[in-house]
Amino acid sequence: MTVSGKTVARLSLYRRLLYGLQAEGERNAFSHQLATMSGGTAARVRRDMMAIGYSGSPTRGYDIEELIKSIASFLDDPEGQRIALVGIGRLGQAILSYFTGRRPKLAIVAAFDCDRKKVNRVIHGCRCYPMAKMKAVVREQDIDIGILTVPGEAAQSVAERLCDAGVRGLLNFTPARLHLPKDIDVEDYDIAMCLEKVAYFARQGRTRSEEG
Amino acid sequence: MTVSGKTVARLSLYRRLLYGLQAEGERNAFSHQLATMSGGTAARVRRDMMAIGYSGSPTRGYDIEELIKSIASFLDDPEGQRIALVGIGRLGQAILSYFTGRRPKLAIVAAFDCDRKKVNRVIHGCRCYPMAKMKAVVREQDIDIGILTVPGEAAQSVAERLCDAGVRGLLNFTPARLHLPKDIDVEDYDIAMCLEKVAYFARQGRTRSEEG
Repeated sequence: MTVSGKTVARLSLYRRLLYGLQAEGERNAFSHQLATMSGGTAARVRRDMMAIGYSGSPTRGYDIEELIKSIASFLDDPEGQRIALVGIGRLGQAILSYFTGRRPKLAIVAAFDCDRKKVNRVIHGCRCYPMAKMKAVVREQDIDIGILTVPGEAAQSVAERLCDAGVRGLLNFTPARLHLPKDIDVEDYDIAMCLEKVAYFARQGRTRSEEG
Repeated sequence: MTVSGKTVARLSLYRRLLYGLQAEGERNAFSHQLATMSGGTAARVRRDMMAIGYSGSPTRGYDIEELIKSIASFLDDPEGQRIALVGIGRLGQAILSYFTGRRPKLAIVAAFDCDRKKVNRVIHGCRCYPMAKMKAVVREQDIDIGILTVPGEAAQSVAERLCDAGVRGLLNFTPARLHLPKDIDVEDYDIAMCLEKVAYFARQGRTRSEEG
């Protein structure tokens, strides 16, 4: 079954919201609750759940534990997926420190850099390799996701090398926009851009309220 | 002058692409170059530049140094803007370590947490305060941007407190979707969701290529 990127994103979001409810001791959740929390409508929540073959009871809502399992069996690879990070600079290291050990089924198992001082050692629990070993390591470890934290100028060539080695999806933290075959999924995730955007509109809002 | 969020985001992107070109020794850039790098059209690049009152020469293109200055005078507050981060967990610390000292005009100047062990000290160069001091610190330091790295369940109430103290823009790293007054700009920046989305489509791509 194929669903849209937006549905996949929402399912991921619902799951984390459900974990939150579970942590608060809840056992059941209604579609309108998930709707409020996710910024959508109850009808859309129900449609998304039906897309993965799950329906709740009108009186008790969804069983949280079962719904989490259903979402997991849709979103997760039962054998797990492995990730390579390229570019062990400040952002790369922050991401390694954030992700290491959090998700056994979606783990960063290798990092690459062209700086000799950063490779052939373990940083935040992750083995670091020189760029020359990329193809071999990606193939051996069956890595299918890449995280790009290289400088923008290097992004396109590194992305091509990763795809050539077998990677099928990229999380791109660089400002570069990548030109890759259509079957490669790229998510641009540009933290500096987001922050500058918030800063700009925060300033407009301040000016507006000073005028008002 | 008011421009759309997408234009602001692209101006931020162009600036970083221009810094990249400058680092490679370039002095001039053509709209079609910026278009290829940013994944748009040359016409859109020219429209965006005209929106900030800048036009290039048809033969030599844009003067990179001047264009960077023009974008800066549009995007940046001449007196700088200050940011507070709330939630000094793993992700919060990663963001502090990434941002500290990088941008004097857009700096994280205070962090907050409810864990006593994390406050009243300096983490990655940033002063950490207890939650009870939020209002006073935000006002004293004229902070107008908040970064939310708290657990999802706490996001709404923390966001309301930040806005009440004077914050006008939020970068939300939590899975919660926030309900706030319309003049508050919120950018949702959900790293786990992005990664799960890439993972899902990477798997679909792999299946497709095995079938094909």
